[in-house]
Order: sequence, then C-alpha cells, then structure tokens
Amino acid sequence: MERLLSADKVPLYERLAEEIALQVRQGTFRPGERVPSVRQISQQKNLSITTVLRAYQMLETRGVIEARPQSGYYVRIPPRPTIPEPEISNPLPDPSQVNIAELVMRVMRDSLDQRLVQFGAAIPDPNLLPIKRLNRILASIARNDQIPQNLCGEPKGLEELRVQVAQRAYLSGCPLTPEDVIITSGATEAISLALRVICRPGDLVAVESPTYFGILQILESLGLRTLEIPTHSRTGLSLGALRFALDNHPVKACLFVPNFNNPLGSLMPSANKRELVEMLAEREIPLIEDDIYGELFFSGQRPEVAKAYDRKDLVVLCSSFSKDISPSLRVGWVAPGRFKAELERLKMATNMCTSLLPQLAVAQFLASGGYDHHMRRMRRAYADKVAQMAQAVARYFPEGTRVTNPLGGHVLWVQLPSKVDSLILYRQALKVGITLAPGYIFSPTTRYKNFIRLNAAYMDARAERAVLRLGELAERLAN
Amino acid sequence: MERLLSADKVPLYERLAEEIALQVRQGTFRPGERVPSVRQISQQKNLSITTVLRAYQMLETRGVIEARPQSGYYVRIPPRPTIPEPEISNPLPDPSQVNIAELVMRVMRDSLDQRLVQFGAAIPDPNLLPIKRLNRILASIARNDQIPQNLCGEPKGLEELRVQVAQRAYLSGCPLTPEDVIITSGATEAISLALRVICRPGDLVAVESPTYFGILQILESLGLRTLEIPTHSRTGLSLGALRFALDNHPVKACLFVPNFNNPLGSLMPSANKRELVEMLAEREIPLIEDDIYGELFFSGQRPEVAKAYDRKDLVVLCSSFSKDISPSLRVGWVAPGRFKAELERLKMATNMCTSLLPQLAVAQFLASGGYDHHMRRMRRAYADKVAQMAQAVARYFPEGTRVTNPLGGHVLWVQLPSKVDSLILYRQALKVGITLAPGYIFSPTTRYKNFIRLNAAYMDARAERAVLRLGELAERLAN
Repeated sequence: MERLLSADKVPLYERLAEEIALQVRQGTFRPGERVPSVRQISQQKNLSITTVLRAYQMLETRGVIEARPQSGYYVRIPPRPTIPEPEISNPLPDPSQVNIAELVMRVMRDSLDQRLVQFGAAIPDPNLLPIKRLNRILASIARNDQIPQNLCGEPKGLEELRVQVAQRAYLSGCPLTPEDVIITSGATEAISLALRVICRPGDLVAVESPTYFGILQILESLGLRTLEIPTHSRTGLSLGALRFALDNHPVKACLFVPNFNNPLGSLMPSANKRELVEMLAEREIPLIEDDIYGELFFSGQRPEVAKAYDRKDLVVLCSSFSKDISPSLRVGWVAPGRFKAELERLKMATNMCTSLLPQLAVAQFLASGGYDHHMRRMRRAYADKVAQMAQAVARYFPEGTRVTNPLGGHVLWVQLPSKVDSLILYRQALKVGITLAPGYIFSPTTRYKNFIRLNAAYMDARAERAVLRLGELAERLAN
Repeated sequence: MERLLSADKVPLYERLAEEIALQVRQGTFRPGERVPSVRQISQQKNLSITTVLRAYQMLETRGVIEARPQSGYYVRIPPRPTIPEPEISNPLPDPSQVNIAELVMRVMRDSLDQRLVQFGAAIPDPNLLPIKRLNRILASIARNDQIPQNLCGEPKGLEELRVQVAQRAYLSGCPLTPEDVIITSGATEAISLALRVICRPGDLVAVESPTYFGILQILESLGLRTLEIPTHSRTGLSLGALRFALDNHPVKACLFVPNFNNPLGSLMPSANKRELVEMLAEREIPLIEDDIYGELFFSGQRPEVAKAYDRKDLVVLCSSFSKDISPSLRVGWVAPGRFKAELERLKMATNMCTSLLPQLAVAQFLASGGYDHHMRRMRRAYADKVAQMAQAVARYFPEGTRVTNPLGGHVLWVQLPSKVDSLILYRQALKVGITLAPGYIFSPTTRYKNFIRLNAAYMDARAERAVLRLGELAERLAN
C-alpha cells in the first residue's frame, strides 16, 4: 500500500478513500454491493484500523458508500434520475476506412442487444433450441454429481461425446470412430487448431468468396494470406477456378464450407465434392472442411461431407453443436485425419481440454434420443423462415435487388443495387432498431460493398415489418 | 454408398454388414446401444429396404446385433468372460530417448486412472473443492433458465464474472477494473493468448528453471525458444541472473510464476517483484505473470502480484479458478494491460468466447460469499498435507535426498541422489500403482534427470505408505 499512498503529503486515509472511490466509479464494486471489510483492507494494505475507518467515514460523507448495521459497508445505490439518460454515443467509422475487425466486433455485439431486430449475426432462434431439455439434463448432472470436478480430462475430450459424434458422422455417410475425433470449444477453435497444425504464417489459404467473416478473422489472426475462389450461390465452389488457382498459386491449404456455405447457403453436389477431394489429394493439399450447417438441410437427406471421399486422411472435418443445440455451450469437434496427434498436442497447449460440463450436457442430450425429432422441427422452421424472408425481400427491396435461394442453413445473401453502400445501410438500420451484416466483412476486399447478409432465424410477422423498413432505407440509398 | 459398396463383386448387403460390424468393433456403436434403423440406413445410403434388412439379418446371425421387438436393432452385449482380461500394454520409452510431449501426455493421463496414487499431475484434492455448492448453483442456473443459450456472449466474457475477478484482484493489492479483464478457458489459454500477441515464432522467452511443463509445452507449440533463469527454491527467480540474461540475449518476453512457482513453491519477496517489474519496464520487455497459485498461501496475507508494481501496463497477469474452485470447468482470466484490444480479438478468433455456463457458475459461486471461508480451509489442509509429505520424504527416501519447503501451493520438488533416473523411478512406481512427475518434463534440457515433483494434495495416512514404497524404489536405484 505504501507504494500507492506515501508518494506525497496527502494523508493516508484520504488516498485510500480516493482509491476506493475510483474502484467504485470503474465498476469493480457496484451499487448495492458490499465493499471489503475494514479488517480485510487493514490486513491487505498494512494500514491501521483507524486509518481505514477514517477513509470509510470520508466515503460515507461523500455518499459513495453507506454503512448497514451489523453487515458492513455497501456501495450506495444512487437515486433514480428523473430525466432519461443521454443515449450512448456509438460512432461508426466512415465507409471509406472500414476496419473489418472493428465492424465484426460491432455486428457480434449487436446480437446481445435485445432491443434490436436480429438480422445481423447468424444466431439461432432460441425457440427452436432444445433449451428446456438441456436445462433438465444440467439439473440431473448437478443432482447426481456426475462431473469429476478436480480433473480436467483428456485433451481430446469425453469419450461419451466422441462416441455420439462418431454415430452422427456414420449417418452422414462418413464413418468415423470415437478415436478419430477431438472435442473443441466450438468450430472456430477446430478450424483455428487445424490451420495452426497445417500452416505457417505467410502461407496462402484458399477460401470461398464470399466467406464467413469468422473464418477471415481466424486467417488474419494467424498471419495467413487469403485466396478467394469464386463460388456459385447454388452449387458452391467453382472447381474450374480452384484448379486454375492451384496451378498458379502456392496454396498450402483449402478451407471450404461445402454444405450450406455461410453466407451463400450453396450446396456442392456430391460429384463436385468427390472431384474436389481428388484434386487436392493429387497435390497433397489438405482440405479443412467446415460442416457446421450440414444438419440444417431443408429437404431430402442429409448431404454428405467431402470427407466421405477422403482416402488419404487429408481432409480435416470441423463442426460444432452451436447451430443445432446451443452456441453458448461452445462445444465443437474436429476429425483431423493424419494431423490428429499434432492437433491433440496443440489442443492441450491451447487450453488443456474443453470444459467437461458442456461436453457432458451435449453428450447426454444426444444419447437421450429425440435429436432427429428436434432437428426435423428446426429444419422445417428454418426452411419456412428463409422462404418468408426471401419473399419479403423480393417484395420490399428496390428494383435490381437479388437474393439467394439457399437449400439449408438460416441466412440469406442479398445483392443490392450497386449504389447502395451496405455500411451506410447498416448504420441507418441500427438507428431504426435493426441489425444486419454488411457485405464488407465477407471478403478481405471491398467487393461485397453492396451486399448484405440477413439472418432469417428471427423471421416472423413482426420481423416482416423490419424487412419492409430495410427495403425503404435501401430504396432511398439506391437513388 | 455406391462408392463404398460397388467396388467388387461382393453383394451389397454383405458389404453393408461388414461396414457396420467394423463400426461396432471400433466403438462407434457400443454394446447395448441402438444401431440406426433400417429406414435411416436405407435413406442415407440410397439402398433398398430389402438390402438393409438382409445385412441386418446377417449381422444378427453373426451375433453382432440383436433385434428387440418393437424397438429396433441393438449391438449385442457380449457374455461376461470367465477369465480376467489381459492387462493393457503400456510400453514406456527408453530414458535415453525421452519424448517430453509424450511423457507429459502420460503423466496427465495417469490423473484419470483412479487406481493410481495421485502424486503426478498437480490435481486438487476433490474433498477440498466446493463441489456440493457448485452443483447447487448449477441446478439453480438450470432451474431458473439463466443462460441465453442462443447467444455466445462477448469474447471478453461475462460481466458478472469480470466484476468478481476485479474485486478479488483489489484484495490482492492490484486494482483492476472489470474492463481490464478477459475471461479465458483456463490459465493455459490466458498464457497462450498472451504469448501469441507479444511474440513471433523464433522469439526468445525467459522462464524460471525448473518450470511447469505446461508452460514449456505452450512455448514449444508456438515455436518460441526458451531461456531458463536460475530460480531459488525459497525466494524464486534470481534477479542477478535475469539481468545478466537480458544484457546478453534478445529476450522478447518473460513468463514467470512469482507466487508459489510450480514445481518449487518459491515466493518472490515484494521488493524483488518491484525490482523485476522495474528492470523489465526499463527495457520495455513484457512480463507474463502466472498467478494460478497466488491464493494458496500457507500463512500471513495473500502475496502481492508483480502486476501491482506495473506502471507501464507491461505486465500481463494470468490466473484461473482451476486450483481453488474447479479444474474441470476451465475458467481462467487475463488482465492484458496494453495488449488488451489485440488479445480480445485473438480470443474471438481462437474460440469466440469461453462457454457461458462455467463462467456463470464461477461468478455465482464468488458472488454468493463463502469464498474466503472455503479458501481458509483449503490453505490449512494443503499446508498440513505438504508438511506431512515432506516429513515422509525425509523419513523414507535415500540419504542425499533434498526436498523443498514451500510457502504455498500443493506440490513438492524432490532432488534424488544423482544416480536415480526419475524416468525409471516413474516407470517402476507405476507398476506398484503410484504416479509422479519425472524431472525431465520441467526443463527443455535433461538437467532435472534426478528430480521428481510430488503432488501433496492426495496426502493422507494411506498415501504415507505410497511415499514409503517410493522411497524404497528410489533407494534401490540410488545404489
């Protein structure tokens, strides 16, 4: 304490009072919360009880804290203001100097603001998630004390969960064993670990264009360079363009989303997946396959993963339970093929292992049956919502607008007339209580300046009016 | 399916049966579990119902699966064997070719084997963890549906938890605000993120010697080089040696554990911490401070963190709740100083955010009071256990053995007579049901060949006999 308090002539108790007042202003101790006891402060700071008491009396006089008999000192709750607080200032960068990382953070943060219509981040509709069943499972885990709290488990994850992953993979045409699987904290971690094992900073990685901004962020965080491959909104990646790219660039790895690419919702036909895997196998280039939307098909059967054609153990399949069960649990997985041993060591050096409690909750949910029923309901609902939103866009958006017709997932990719700047639209939409994802964040270039991605998961009658409102804003920007 | 089944003349149903039998052998479908329905397989694989039924009948005949009326097909539970199963082969590498990564994995895996006496990994005593209260909190979170399951939260973590971290930090003499803190998946992730922000592959990082093997693994995984600084078992890091090292090597960052270094249990005096921080500040070298054991002091008051002396925002303070609350929850935190914005972006690109459920459980545990009471009990117990184990080592180990006298934590560092190879001792101890941490894994060199680290958390009367047994093995190796 001496180092904090004895620098000048101000009495000790006054400096202590200042210090505590600062902590209160900065939110360490919040209104209504207890501050440390006089004895605690005296011990910790090596000050006399008298000094601490004087500081607390000073803070009391100033209205910062208040004594409650037989209980201690508490941060005073300020009286309710009689006029509304000013709006929080929220300046947005000029479109000419877009900072992608900053913009992504904003779009993600919007998803926590419940006053906004959620067309931005690709968050699921909470009403379609099995929240009640998850809570019942959690309660039962707690009641039966099923977690060995003093252990952190193997880096590759709980066996119960790896078995469930292998069973689901078998049904998606890709026979995996529990030993082929490593549990991660979401698909983001799976992809990040795969890239760290396969690439070195400066390496070139091929991605679809447009591609999910989270993938671009991972690549940037690892110092990797991005090569964008043209991608069709129906059939996905252009194999001709990829072949040309591989012939002309030193591509170290490919990172693709063959099933319902985000934001396009495109689906690579099986024959294309096979050709893709063979093309890469010939050149010994690993494919990192993100299958996070694979279960969200709108009709027919679950599409195959490209890994089903992998004969050289060169495909690293990544997925998660963030779209079908819960994003907040952060449980994903990776089947790393020939990179398994190295990826497992890297997982351990990254965070030891994924938290056991969320792993166990997901494993018990999958094992308890009812996943198929749950998913049938979710798929039907998203198919309806996506169709409804696409129709609304067609109805309310300016002439010249184009919109995808996805076969799965829950997002739409909208091309606006070329005059519309998606960042300005984003900014104006926020002002009327709607968030969306501007096209800028789906490419390292500005090529999607006049595109937006809309999350259809929240689509309903009320949201229809928000689409109308968006259309009006776009209309004004188009002219 | 065609790709799997039509390659030769074997009938389709026979190939399908083979494929499913393989999945059963590999553990994807386990004894007593239901296999996919005939309809599911037929749809997924595009095969006729007849073909699938023939395959299932074949598997039934072979005793792989069995039909249960009105329920489907299940993997048959094999009859109980009448002679014991053979022991699992567990070959260990020759001491002359120690693979550190492999050895670390083994020591960590030992911690999951409940038949072993747990002197190896530094796992806490489950009886000292607040497991009942945690379970009560979890049940209440589930009952009151307190998690927004469809959101993944901000990368920096839940505000409730960051407030609790800031309050605890204030009491350890280091005023942090909730905005200074980022929640991570354990201290390992905090350290790994800090190193990724500060260093580039090939950079030199100074560490204590000996140092926790997890730290060495993180450094290796990031392609960083290690510079070992001599460290005293009582007063910690030698500042003279560090100054010399900084004058002669291009050290990019320091990664130290000033409070109860693992494995030494040493405690840097406050004056040394201040001098350390000033020495590094002069040279603009960041200090990554791991304070995971800081709350486990045996007497007096909580030792200060070096960050308390940080005037240049150059100290990155890392810690976790793995030692005091629960390792399996994987909740840690970092106060990154001037590296905050970059570290937050990197956290997002690594795994979006830490799972909300464990964060909320820890926050509610801390907010509900009783932490201080819980910790007083834990500290007293560990002080007793460490003293008891040190006495047992003194009594039963060969002449010439030295042992630390730590002031906190729950491990002992034991120097054996120079003839004792700790890897051979580890191997022999495993055979008699005891695991320990061989000295090899605490340095990138073999300089701690004749050292072992013992976890005292499991020390009790029964464990005393295990120390005696270890002493006998060491005695034999010493002669």
